[in-house]
Amino acid sequence: MNSLGRHILAEFYECDPGMLNDTKAIERAMKGAAEVSGATIVQSVFHMFSPHGVSGVVVVAESHLAVHTWPEYGFAAVDYFTCGEVNAGAAIRYLEEEFGAERVTTREVERGALGPGGEGAGLLVGPESGEAES
Amino acid sequence: MNSLGRHILAEFYECDPGMLNDTKAIERAMKGAAEVSGATIVQSVFHMFSPHGVSGVVVVAESHLAVHTWPEYGFAAVDYFTCGEVNAGAAIRYLEEEFGAERVTTREVERGALGPGGEGAGLLVGPESGEAES
Repeated sequence: MNSLGRHILAEFYECDPGMLNDTKAIERAMKGAAEVSGATIVQSVFHMFSPHGVSGVVVVAESHLAVHTWPEYGFAAVDYFTCGEVNAGAAIRYLEEEFGAERVTTREVERGALGPGGEGAGLLVGPESGEAES
Repeated sequence: MNSLGRHILAEFYECDPGMLNDTKAIERAMKGAAEVSGATIVQSVFHMFSPHGVSGVVVVAESHLAVHTWPEYGFAAVDYFTCGEVNAGAAIRYLEEEFGAERVTTREVERGALGPGGEGAGLLVGPESGEAES
């Protein structure tokens, strides 16, 4: 596939609600995930919402890794945009452990398709849902 | 659809390469896009890559708006994750104008499906490709 980037969308269900409401712990986990995937961290922003929930983004040299948590549902949404040689799967498995997730689904989307067939040719979504054992 | 968030993935083709390589201009455009969509800006991070390209994220109270640019291809990838009442379409149209894009495709992905049918029920991708006139 001749595309400029890959975008991994991962849903973490039945997580530890306390973890999902702890901004510092989420920041540590997200930076750890960037590191285990082999990415280079450039900068990060994390934010606690009232009354609960954390949003955060780690900008990496290879693009970005973002998270939004809903502790009240035990749910976290992560997306990992990458345009380099990073191991996004390792990041997802690391976060599954850190979040205490019982169930994880992932989807991969090609971004910025170029080449034969026109720009739109590669814009279809990859596997609609992959499930990791918890 | 009973989901916690919506994730809009937008591809901007045949953009003004100079614009895509100007970190300050990209930051202004992204913050402007967040504003026209009715979102509340919390914090932002923008980063210029060597030799070219900009990555940036605006964290909004309703989640995040991220961009990665490839000036050498006239291409920019934007994603807008939202869990509130924002007008993501207005943001995309604003960026199309700002980037001088000749062609834009968008996809919408439901994030964090809950309720009847199990967590996976709503995880299918919405319209695979919508195209806006430039």
